[in-house]
Amino acid sequence: MLRTHTCGELNPKNISEKVTLCGWVQKSRDLGGMTFVDMRDRYGITQLVFNMQTNAKLCEKARKLGREFVISVSGIVEERSNKNLKIPTGEIEITVDKFDILSKSKLPPFTIEDNTDGGEELRMKYRYLDLRRNPLRKNLELRHRMTIETRNYLNSQKFIEIETPYLIKSTPEGARDFVVPSRMNEGEFYALPQSPQTFKQLLMIAGYDRYYQLVKCFRDEDLRADRQPEFTQIDCEMSFVTQDDILNTFEELIKHLFKKVKNINVEDFPIISYDYAMKYYGTDKPDIRFEMKFVELNNLAKGSGFKVFDDTESVVGICAEGCGDYSRKQLDKLTDFVRKPQIGAKGLVYVKYNEDGSFKSSVDKFFDQKALKTWSEAFNAEPGDLLLILSGESGHTGKALCELRLEMGNRLELRDKNKFCPLWIVDFPLLEWDDETNKYHAMHHPFTSPKAEDIQLLNSEPGKARANAYDLVINGVEIGGGSIRIFNKELQKKMFKALGFTEEQAQEQFGFLMNAFEYGAPPHGGIALGFDRLVALFGGSDSIRDYIAFPKNNAGRDVMIDSPSAIFAEQLKELKLKIEE
Amino acid sequence: MLRTHTCGELNPKNISEKVTLCGWVQKSRDLGGMTFVDMRDRYGITQLVFNMQTNAKLCEKARKLGREFVISVSGIVEERSNKNLKIPTGEIEITVDKFDILSKSKLPPFTIEDNTDGGEELRMKYRYLDLRRNPLRKNLELRHRMTIETRNYLNSQKFIEIETPYLIKSTPEGARDFVVPSRMNEGEFYALPQSPQTFKQLLMIAGYDRYYQLVKCFRDEDLRADRQPEFTQIDCEMSFVTQDDILNTFEELIKHLFKKVKNINVEDFPIISYDYAMKYYGTDKPDIRFEMKFVELNNLAKGSGFKVFDDTESVVGICAEGCGDYSRKQLDKLTDFVRKPQIGAKGLVYVKYNEDGSFKSSVDKFFDQKALKTWSEAFNAEPGDLLLILSGESGHTGKALCELRLEMGNRLELRDKNKFCPLWIVDFPLLEWDDETNKYHAMHHPFTSPKAEDIQLLNSEPGKARANAYDLVINGVEIGGGSIRIFNKELQKKMFKALGFTEEQAQEQFGFLMNAFEYGAPPHGGIALGFDRLVALFGGSDSIRDYIAFPKNNAGRDVMIDSPSAIFAEQLKELKLKIEE
Repeated sequence: MLRTHTCGELNPKNISEKVTLCGWVQKSRDLGGMTFVDMRDRYGITQLVFNMQTNAKLCEKARKLGREFVISVSGIVEERSNKNLKIPTGEIEITVDKFDILSKSKLPPFTIEDNTDGGEELRMKYRYLDLRRNPLRKNLELRHRMTIETRNYLNSQKFIEIETPYLIKSTPEGARDFVVPSRMNEGEFYALPQSPQTFKQLLMIAGYDRYYQLVKCFRDEDLRADRQPEFTQIDCEMSFVTQDDILNTFEELIKHLFKKVKNINVEDFPIISYDYAMKYYGTDKPDIRFEMKFVELNNLAKGSGFKVFDDTESVVGICAEGCGDYSRKQLDKLTDFVRKPQIGAKGLVYVKYNEDGSFKSSVDKFFDQKALKTWSEAFNAEPGDLLLILSGESGHTGKALCELRLEMGNRLELRDKNKFCPLWIVDFPLLEWDDETNKYHAMHHPFTSPKAEDIQLLNSEPGKARANAYDLVINGVEIGGGSIRIFNKELQKKMFKALGFTEEQAQEQFGFLMNAFEYGAPPHGGIALGFDRLVALFGGSDSIRDYIAFPKNNAGRDVMIDSPSAIFAEQLKELKLKIEE
Repeated sequence: MLRTHTCGELNPKNISEKVTLCGWVQKSRDLGGMTFVDMRDRYGITQLVFNMQTNAKLCEKARKLGREFVISVSGIVEERSNKNLKIPTGEIEITVDKFDILSKSKLPPFTIEDNTDGGEELRMKYRYLDLRRNPLRKNLELRHRMTIETRNYLNSQKFIEIETPYLIKSTPEGARDFVVPSRMNEGEFYALPQSPQTFKQLLMIAGYDRYYQLVKCFRDEDLRADRQPEFTQIDCEMSFVTQDDILNTFEELIKHLFKKVKNINVEDFPIISYDYAMKYYGTDKPDIRFEMKFVELNNLAKGSGFKVFDDTESVVGICAEGCGDYSRKQLDKLTDFVRKPQIGAKGLVYVKYNEDGSFKSSVDKFFDQKALKTWSEAFNAEPGDLLLILSGESGHTGKALCELRLEMGNRLELRDKNKFCPLWIVDFPLLEWDDETNKYHAMHHPFTSPKAEDIQLLNSEPGKARANAYDLVINGVEIGGGSIRIFNKELQKKMFKALGFTEEQAQEQFGFLMNAFEYGAPPHGGIALGFDRLVALFGGSDSIRDYIAFPKNNAGRDVMIDSPSAIFAEQLKELKLKIEE
C-alpha cells in the first residue's frame, strides 16, 4: 500500500506514530510561519502541518499545493493544540517531514464542497468531480448499505438470488423496449428487460420457491423529471403463498431496512383498498403522514341554486386545520394554485370557520350559516379551521384536490421528511380502459390474477374485475408493486383475450410461459420495489439522480461520456442496418 | 402460506404433528394396499402414504397423480418403518388425510432426475424443467453462496459496491460491442459494456478508494463452446496500491471462497512471469496441479544430422513419468493426437527410458545411447519414464506441447478436479502485434500501465515493453486478470499513440477519461474475475452454461423464449432504422 493509514482513522491513540497518508488537498491556509493543509479521502479529513522554521523548503513546497492535488505525505502524528471535536481525526495533526505530489489538478470547474457553486449540467459533465462531494458520497454509501441489508434479510428468509438474462425478447406490452440488434442473427433483435417478470415466474415453475434479484431494468420512455432509462429493482417472487404472505414478508423487509439503516421502528403498515384511497385521497399513492381526508359534499351542497355545484358530478373538499385566519391574499394564492394547468381546477370554494363560531365563505350568497354549519360537521371541523372545496368531473376533481391536499400538507409542515408512513394499497382494478388504443390495458401486467370471485366478470364487464395486486406506498411515493400471478394456461389465455391479443399473438409472444404452465406450475406471486427511489426516500430526497453514480439527463443522455453517439459505418454494416434520413 | 412446512425439514421431532405441504410429485408407487408418493420441493423430498384400507377414495385419487403434478397435502407426520437415512426426511412419512391438485402436468419431455434422458437442445428449450433437476439446482445454490461470500469478503475490506451504467458508449477497441439504438436521439446508439473499465477508473478519480460490483458484461463475439454473449464479472478497483497489494487482496478473496464454500485451505499462490510460463508450460494459463515442465533440447539435439531437428527453431519435450512401457499402439495414438489439426504438430519423437537403463527411441538412427542418456539427464528422467519431444517454430511447438502435456496429465490422472492450484502470472507484454491489422493491440487493455523502466521502450521497441498486468489462473483456467492503470494524461496519450490512435480518435473516444486525469487522479489498479467460470470451477465442471439460469446456445440464441427475433415494423420506424436486405 502507498499509505499506512487512511485520512479517517488517526486519533490520540496514534500520537507519536510515524505514518504515511495519501489523499486530495481539500484546502490549505498559511498562518504566519505555519501552513495547514486539510487532506481528504473517502474516509475523512486529516490536518497536515508544515513549519517554516523547522523545514522551510518543505513548507515552501506545500504552499504551492493547489486544491484537489493528490499527494502522499509521511510524518509524525501529534496532538493538536486547537482541537476540532466534530470530526474523528480532529484531535491530531501530522507534522509532515516528506511529501510527494502524485497528481496535479487543474482548478475544478466548481467547488468540491458540501454546498457547491456548480450548476446541474456542469456537475453532470464532471460527474467524477461532483462524486467527490460529501453529500453524493454519503448517498452512494447509503445505497451500498441498503443493498447489504436487503440481501441479508432476503437471504435469511431463504430467498435465492438468481441472475436472469439481459438480452431477452421484445414484447409490445406497455412501455417501450430498448432493442439490441443481433449480428449473428441478421435482422433479428434482442430486447433489454423492462423487468425479469416472465423469468421469475419460470423460476417458480422450476421450483426455486423464493427468488430475488437486485437487477437493472430498462424503459425507453420519454423521460419525465426523475425517470431514468435504466433503473434498479429489488425483484422478488414466492411460491405457495397468498397475498397476505407477500405483504407480510415485504413489510418485514422494509421494517428491517428502516431499523438497520436508520434505526427507526416503523409501525405496522395500514392496508387500504384502491377504492378507499381514490375516495379519500384522490390517488392510489396517498401520503398518510397527515390526515386531511376528502369529504364528499354532494348531498349537502347540491340543490341550493349554486349552478357550479348543481350541474357537476362531484363536490368534495378538505379541512385545513387552523387555517381559518387565512387572508384574502393567501386564499387567492390557493385559488391560483388549483387553477394551474397541471392541476386544472376551475376555481376554489372556501369556508372559514371563525373562532366565534360563525362562517365566512366564498359562496355566502347561496349558502346560509346553517348550511355551512352542516358542512363543517361533515368535516368534523373546529372553529379556526378552513374548508377548501372543489367541484367537477369526479376523476379530475379528485386529482386536483389531491394536489391541494399535498400543498396544504406542505404549508402546514405536515410532511416531515424524517417521518415515514408506509402503507399497502390493495384490490386494484385488473384492467384499465385506454381511450387512445380503444382497448383494455392490464393495470399491473397481463400475468396478474383476477380475484377468484371476479373471474366471471372477464367475459361480461371486464372493467369491473379486481386484481390480486398491491402497491407499497411510502410518504406519497409508489415504492413498488406486485401481484399474485395467473398460473393456469386457460385463465392466462382468457386474460390475453380481454387485453385484445389474438391467440396467435399470445402464443408467439408468451407461448413459452403458457407452455410452462402445462408442466406443473405452483401458485405464486411477487413484488418489485424501485430501489433508486427507496434509497432516495431513505436519504430524504425526491431526486433519484443523486443516488445513482452515473445517471442520465432528461434527454436520456450521459453528458459525461457523451452518449448515445453515432457509431461507425462498419458497425452498422455488420448489423445489416441502415439509418433512415 | 399454503403450507406449514417445506418438503425438506420434517424429522422424528415432528412425529404426530399435523402438517400441510406443497410440492411436485417426484414419483409414486403402488405396493399392494398402499400408495407411496415422493413429493419434492427446493428443500427436499418427503414421502406421502395413502392407505387403501383406511381411505380408499383418497388412495384411488392419489393413484391417478402423474409425475410433476403440483399438490397440496395435509396429514400426520409418522415414523417410517423402512427408514432412508440418506436424506434428512428419511425417518418420517406423512399419512395423508386430504389433498388437492394445484396444477396438473403433461408428461415432461425428459425425465426430471439427476441423470436425465434429455438431449441438450431439448433441455435448453424446456429450461424451466431442466432447472428442476438436483444438479442444476445445486449449481445455482452454489452460485448464490459464492455471491454472498464474495460480497462478505469485499465488504469487510471496505470495498463499496457501486452500480455503473449499462447504456454506455461504443468504442471500437477489442471485441465487438452490442449497440442499442436510441429513440430519443435519432441515429445515435448506446453500447452495452464489455466491462465497466472506464467507470471504475472514474470512481477512483472520484475518490471512492475501493470499488466492486458483481456485474453483467456483454460481448458480441462469435461464440466458441462455453462463451456467452452476456457474462458476469466480479469487477474491482483500488486506489493507492501497488501490484502486490492487489495480488494479496484477491488471493485472500479466493482463499476465503475456498474456505467458506468448499472448506478447502488453499496454499499461497505462486507468482510466475509470463516468460517463465511460456517457456515451461507453453501457455500463460498453466495447469500446475502437476509438474511435467518443458525441457528445451536445442543444444543437445541439434547438429546430429537429423534434419527435422537441425532445420528447426525449437526442440522441446516433456517427461511422462512411468510411461516407459507404452506400447507401439499407445505411442501411435499420441502421435495421432499431436497431429490433429487443432494441435498441429507434424510428428512426435519419443524416447523410452527402459527399466534396464537402456533407451529406445524413434530417432535411434541419429542418436546413440550416450546422446539419449544426456537427454534423459536434461529431463531428470528415471528408468521407466517416457520422453516426448516436439520440434518446429517455437510458438506453435510450445502450444502443441502444452496440449500434449495436458493430455498426458489426463492420462496419468494428475488433473484431479478436487485439487485446486491457483497461481498468478505477471509481467505480461504490454502490446501484442497483430498481423491482420498491422498494428499493436493492448494485450490487456489500453489503460494498463507499462513498467516504469520500460516506458522509454514505447518509442523505440514497443513490443518489448512489459506491463503492470497480472492474471489469476486456477487449474489451467484463466479466472481473471487486471493491471495497475495509467493515471497520467501524457502517458495515456503515448499509449494511445502506440496503439495507432490519432489524437482526435483518442480524444473523441476517451476524452472524458483523459480530462479526468487532469483533476487529481490517484494511482490505481484493479482486477476482474470471470464469475461464471469461477463458479463452474468450484462446481467441478468445465461448462459455465450449467451455472447460468438461462444461458444462450452457441448461436447466441435463447431457444426457450426464441430470441433474438424480428421486431415490429412500428418499432423500427420509431428508431428510424431499416434492415438491409
